[in-house]
Amino acid sequence: MNKSLKEENKLTQIWVDIQSYLERELKAVDQLIYLRLQNPVFLISEISQHLIWAGGKRIRPLLVLLTSKLVGYEGLRSINLAAAIEFIHTATLLHDDVVDESPQRRGIQTAQIVWGNKASILVGDFLFTRAFECMIEDGSLHILRVLSHSASLIAQGEVMQLETLHDLNMKESHYQEIIEAKTASLFEAACHIGAILGGVSPEECEDLRQYGRLLGILFQMTDDILDYQEGEGGKEKGIDFREGKVTLPVILAYEKGNEEERDFWKRTFCEHQHRPGDFKKAQNYLERHNVFQDIQNKLLNLSVSSKKMLEIFPDSETRKLLSNLVDFILRRRF
Amino acid sequence: MNKSLKEENKLTQIWVDIQSYLERELKAVDQLIYLRLQNPVFLISEISQHLIWAGGKRIRPLLVLLTSKLVGYEGLRSINLAAAIEFIHTATLLHDDVVDESPQRRGIQTAQIVWGNKASILVGDFLFTRAFECMIEDGSLHILRVLSHSASLIAQGEVMQLETLHDLNMKESHYQEIIEAKTASLFEAACHIGAILGGVSPEECEDLRQYGRLLGILFQMTDDILDYQEGEGGKEKGIDFREGKVTLPVILAYEKGNEEERDFWKRTFCEHQHRPGDFKKAQNYLERHNVFQDIQNKLLNLSVSSKKMLEIFPDSETRKLLSNLVDFILRRRF
Repeated sequence: MNKSLKEENKLTQIWVDIQSYLERELKAVDQLIYLRLQNPVFLISEISQHLIWAGGKRIRPLLVLLTSKLVGYEGLRSINLAAAIEFIHTATLLHDDVVDESPQRRGIQTAQIVWGNKASILVGDFLFTRAFECMIEDGSLHILRVLSHSASLIAQGEVMQLETLHDLNMKESHYQEIIEAKTASLFEAACHIGAILGGVSPEECEDLRQYGRLLGILFQMTDDILDYQEGEGGKEKGIDFREGKVTLPVILAYEKGNEEERDFWKRTFCEHQHRPGDFKKAQNYLERHNVFQDIQNKLLNLSVSSKKMLEIFPDSETRKLLSNLVDFILRRRF
Repeated sequence: MNKSLKEENKLTQIWVDIQSYLERELKAVDQLIYLRLQNPVFLISEISQHLIWAGGKRIRPLLVLLTSKLVGYEGLRSINLAAAIEFIHTATLLHDDVVDESPQRRGIQTAQIVWGNKASILVGDFLFTRAFECMIEDGSLHILRVLSHSASLIAQGEVMQLETLHDLNMKESHYQEIIEAKTASLFEAACHIGAILGGVSPEECEDLRQYGRLLGILFQMTDDILDYQEGEGGKEKGIDFREGKVTLPVILAYEKGNEEERDFWKRTFCEHQHRPGDFKKAQNYLERHNVFQDIQNKLLNLSVSSKKMLEIFPDSETRKLLSNLVDFILRRRF
């Protein structure tokens, strides 16, 4: 068996283990999501159900379930709150997907774009209110505070990202700030909720939050690197490149690039002029400056740090799965 | 003094009376809004402040303040909750303003549209989370439930409206359902909050909610009719007509129209083919079938019913102002 196949099997095993460990709870979360999305307004059921069942990995609900289990919580509140977190996540996806009216979209039917945009926004809003209804039903103001703070950070992070679109001079620290807000804050909130449900000590709570935060950063950074890597998965590549979204790979390559390369990045990112073969060229530049390897090293450090945060808790099956989840997110190719 | 000038002076007087009666509270609401919109992310402060200070009438905050006063509440929670309601309203405005990529927009710079769309959505999301932060700070789960239910109805109403865009066969009852959800629910929630703050009886609570609901319907129906009426105000006319948004005036005119007129409505609303002079023609058709007068009669009935809901409360300055507010909304020309 070759190395990459072995690696892939290991990843699949991690995923299967987590899924079977949480089988009952995940099924309950899905049932609750299904119930809460029943709506007399056709487009709402249609769009929200479509996105919710489109094969998302449910990583954020997983985190609520696993962390609450880790700290000994055995009730049902985690189901409801896991659904709330998935609603928030899906709402942000819908709002993030709003079509940029960029030149290459011009070929598409106007009406379709309009319908899609408006509907995405409004159904996103609806999901957002559903999330709050779940939390209000739960009744903990503490948890409401945690999740609404996170939702606020997500919006701020997305706006920061919008402000730096096409900005090749963005610093790595600013990139970091953006992904902490737009992605890591919800991972952190998911683990924070687990901690609150278990009623843990302040130190344990802090470590669980850190675990979530670091995992979230790891998640977004692997996502950003995968957009430039040839992978086996079905996910489309080069989306950030085409949108002009400056992410860590480009920041590093631009910093290290010679004059010719910088002109290339400026043309593609700032002037939005794309020619055939540009994406391949971008990938080559990233290779040339060892950008993939550099980021991979950062990711390894992050994975070690996040696993460390679990050490405060006694060894258990749940702790092992949370630790394996870090590897899963680090090594996934999709 | 001619009749219309006298009428206008009366309206101005109503407005001035309300503003001076609530001067202290309204100032406090504005200060709180200002504070809560301070944000290190430039675009967030910029866009949200711009819209919030763009001269909105603050009718929903007014309702929280007046109704809570009516039922004897004297504390400061109404300030915070009035701000929350204004945040929700502004968020929905931002999301509602997302540019339809309709043909006549094609002349505009692409980048500008993109920036506007994405930014509107995300800043709207941010305002929405700010609203929830205000409510969570207030700490009443009851009020959280009322407002999140209303926010959910608004989203549902907006989606329903999207589904019926260009639908000339829409029934009046469906139009009613849409405006109750997208507009009246927040008016009702504002008054409901006032009632909760004052700790009133179930009957009084119900009547205050009804007052708000009827006022909200009145508000939206006058808004929809004003879009077709020549007015003195600076507000642009014919927006619904250009967007193909079917509202009550068009429903009634289409029902009563002859074949030629129906062809006209189909061409402009369904096929979206507009020619010079079309809007004037639309106005003439509405006149021809007494549509303005018919709706005016409905509005009068609504205003009587909503004022009736105040009769359960003893006579007071506040009650008089709430009653006058109905006239203000009914008679305004902007």
